[in-house]
Amino acid sequence: MPESLRWLAGAPFGRVVFTENALPAVRPMYHLVDDDRVVIHGQLGSVLPRGHEQVVTYAADEIDPTTRLGWLVTVTGLAGPVTDPAEIERYQSLLNRLIPLPHDQVIRISCEFVAGIELVSSTLPRAAD
Amino acid sequence: MPESLRWLAGAPFGRVVFTENALPAVRPMYHLVDDDRVVIHGQLGSVLPRGHEQVVTYAADEIDPTTRLGWLVTVTGLAGPVTDPAEIERYQSLLNRLIPLPHDQVIRISCEFVAGIELVSSTLPRAAD
Repeated sequence: MPESLRWLAGAPFGRVVFTENALPAVRPMYHLVDDDRVVIHGQLGSVLPRGHEQVVTYAADEIDPTTRLGWLVTVTGLAGPVTDPAEIERYQSLLNRLIPLPHDQVIRISCEFVAGIELVSSTLPRAAD
Repeated sequence: MPESLRWLAGAPFGRVVFTENALPAVRPMYHLVDDDRVVIHGQLGSVLPRGHEQVVTYAADEIDPTTRLGWLVTVTGLAGPVTDPAEIERYQSLLNRLIPLPHDQVIRISCEFVAGIELVSSTLPRAAD
C-alpha cells in the first residue's frame, strides 16, 4: 500500500468532494481503506444520486493549526455503490465501529489518482508515493 | 454576519473545493471573511485557470475526533480574482499574517449559499443561520 494510503487509513475521518446539482460539494465522512480502495458510507441520494456512479475526490489531512505541519492526501476515482450483500455487511460492520449512525449507502472509491503531501516545514513540502 | 460566517471567520484554515481538469479537487487554504465574502489566496492556475471565474465551495470545520462534536460550514458562490491593486495589497497584508507563503492570486468568493451545521450530539445536529 502506498504511504499516502497508509496515512489515509490512519486518519479519523475525511471529506468526500463531489458534484451535487452541478455545484461543488463536500461532506465529512468516516472511511476505511480496503485493498487500495476507499470505502465510505452515506445517505442515499447525497453523494450518488439514484445510485449512479460518479467521479469523486476523497481527502483527509492532519495539519497542526499552530505549526502548520502535517500531511494531506487526496484520492480521485470512480465512486460506486457496493451491491454485494456480503460485502455490504462486512463494510457496515467495520464502519459502524467508527460511527453508529444510520446510513443507507456503502460507497467504494477506486483510487485512480492518489496524491500525498507531507508538510515538513513551511517552505519544503515533501511528496509521498 | 450570519453565525455560520462567524464560525468560518474564527477557523484557522479551510478547504476550497472546485473543478480542475473536469475532476473534483480540494486544496487547504488560509482565508479571511470580509463583509460577507470569503477571501483566499493561491497559486495562479490552480483554483482559477487563466484568472477565469468559476463556482467553488469553501468549507471549514472543527470536529473533535473523539467526541465527534463541533461544527462545519460550507459556502458556495462565484470565485473571481481580486484585481484592484489597493484591495490586493490590503488582503495580502491580512493574509500574510496568517501564512507568509508566496502566492500570486487573491481570490474573493461571493457567499451565494451558506450552510452551517453544529454537531451538538451524534443524533441531533443543529442547523445554524
